[in-house]
Amino acid sequence: MTKTQLIEQIKKKKSFLCIGLDVDLDKIPEHLLELDDPIFEFNKQIIDATHHLTVAYKPNIAFYEAYGIKGWQSLHKTIAYLNNHHPDIFTIADAKRGDIGNTSTRYAKAFFEDLDFDSITVAPYMGRDSVEPFLAFKNKFTIMLALTSNIGGLDFQTLKIENEELYKKVLKSSLTWQNSENLMYVVGATRPEYFEQIRKIIPKHFILVPGVGAQGGSLSEVCKYGLNKNIGLLVNSTRGIIYASKGEDFAEKAQEQALELQQEMKAILKLQ
Amino acid sequence: MTKTQLIEQIKKKKSFLCIGLDVDLDKIPEHLLELDDPIFEFNKQIIDATHHLTVAYKPNIAFYEAYGIKGWQSLHKTIAYLNNHHPDIFTIADAKRGDIGNTSTRYAKAFFEDLDFDSITVAPYMGRDSVEPFLAFKNKFTIMLALTSNIGGLDFQTLKIENEELYKKVLKSSLTWQNSENLMYVVGATRPEYFEQIRKIIPKHFILVPGVGAQGGSLSEVCKYGLNKNIGLLVNSTRGIIYASKGEDFAEKAQEQALELQQEMKAILKLQ
Repeated sequence: MTKTQLIEQIKKKKSFLCIGLDVDLDKIPEHLLELDDPIFEFNKQIIDATHHLTVAYKPNIAFYEAYGIKGWQSLHKTIAYLNNHHPDIFTIADAKRGDIGNTSTRYAKAFFEDLDFDSITVAPYMGRDSVEPFLAFKNKFTIMLALTSNIGGLDFQTLKIENEELYKKVLKSSLTWQNSENLMYVVGATRPEYFEQIRKIIPKHFILVPGVGAQGGSLSEVCKYGLNKNIGLLVNSTRGIIYASKGEDFAEKAQEQALELQQEMKAILKLQ
Repeated sequence: MTKTQLIEQIKKKKSFLCIGLDVDLDKIPEHLLELDDPIFEFNKQIIDATHHLTVAYKPNIAFYEAYGIKGWQSLHKTIAYLNNHHPDIFTIADAKRGDIGNTSTRYAKAFFEDLDFDSITVAPYMGRDSVEPFLAFKNKFTIMLALTSNIGGLDFQTLKIENEELYKKVLKSSLTWQNSENLMYVVGATRPEYFEQIRKIIPKHFILVPGVGAQGGSLSEVCKYGLNKNIGLLVNSTRGIIYASKGEDFAEKAQEQALELQQEMKAILKLQ
């Protein structure tokens, strides 16, 4: 998918929502557990109920890896279902990968070619040559951690280097990398006070914002400084949507929660 | 495996060698490609030929992920072969994982429980609560990136924060984390000049050292400051060993290369 197509989808659906697919067998409705592939079945029903309200889905790869080969099979089926039935959806492999050059190329192939995701999250600690191999893929996006929503996000990311926080160095440095137009960034919704300064460094790039909902972030605060003229935001919600109910009505309840967020987004977009 | 058992193995084998298992179908002998699982068959023969010369194997997870489900099956078979036939070998999942708390727990379960590796490599960018979930596993080790061997390792890791490089902040901070005795660290062999200072911060912990051989690092220079009284080093070699030959003699040639490194290590240990 191209960035233009993503922006078109956002305008069409009046939504910049991303739904996290972090499937935990202890949290999904019990009646699904009898099925052959409860994880895929859960995802399929969530997708069927919410695809018109969201522009992106973000499977958290750890949740699939934790179930071994079976988990990878569920992930393959989920991404294939999305690509076959909803090719206009932007897909994000939340994988936080990153390694030396030839290894990053392998990760990129795994997620961009074998699984055919539109994008992947990566960690920046190993620097330019650990991220550029991902950026080399055309019409694929590399979503780099900048300022994360967890408490530990403040351990190193906001340490000051010559009066400038590390995450700002990471942002500025990344803009000089080859194919940097294929970058997006992760900035946690729990840090709305940082968005204004971040937008000064990366006015045009998309920002993926986790942390709205269960982690306590506010949508309106994020939008205040996070939106740009091409929207430029993907706001993720996971637990508040996919675990809205543990009953047989889970997909219906997920739809209600997604609709609520989409309506908020629609109202915000109207003001733009 | 406990740290004491690892040290015993090193003393018994007179080796602190770790062999990387980064299996690339384009680089392995052609006669293996006709087999049902060439990756596992390659690993098995490498292991059979070198297990008496090495104390650890380090599959690079990207290389398995890149082959999809089939790659994960080869990884499962490889780690099961190691755990069943060579339980005295220390196993490292070179995965560079790390995410917010509940997600890191999933990654830890995937590698420590489902796959039953002794250790995993992790990235520190997201801070304490992204690493502590790994440290909570008893007799399992979390090998955190400190100073990496690639060029991009200098992009952020050596930036100065109040006259101290980021990687030193990372090292010092990590010592305050819960179960920090379960930490080991990655320091690239291409940075021997840093080992003296690093050992002042982490005198007791094990350091995993990639970058000897193909990447240009020197074993003797690493050992000069890297060794501690319990050895405290695992020195990795990958391409120089596993790709020593592309012919039918690949395992034999791998053994020769591993023996050469083990003999160097034996000589160094004698001087201790």
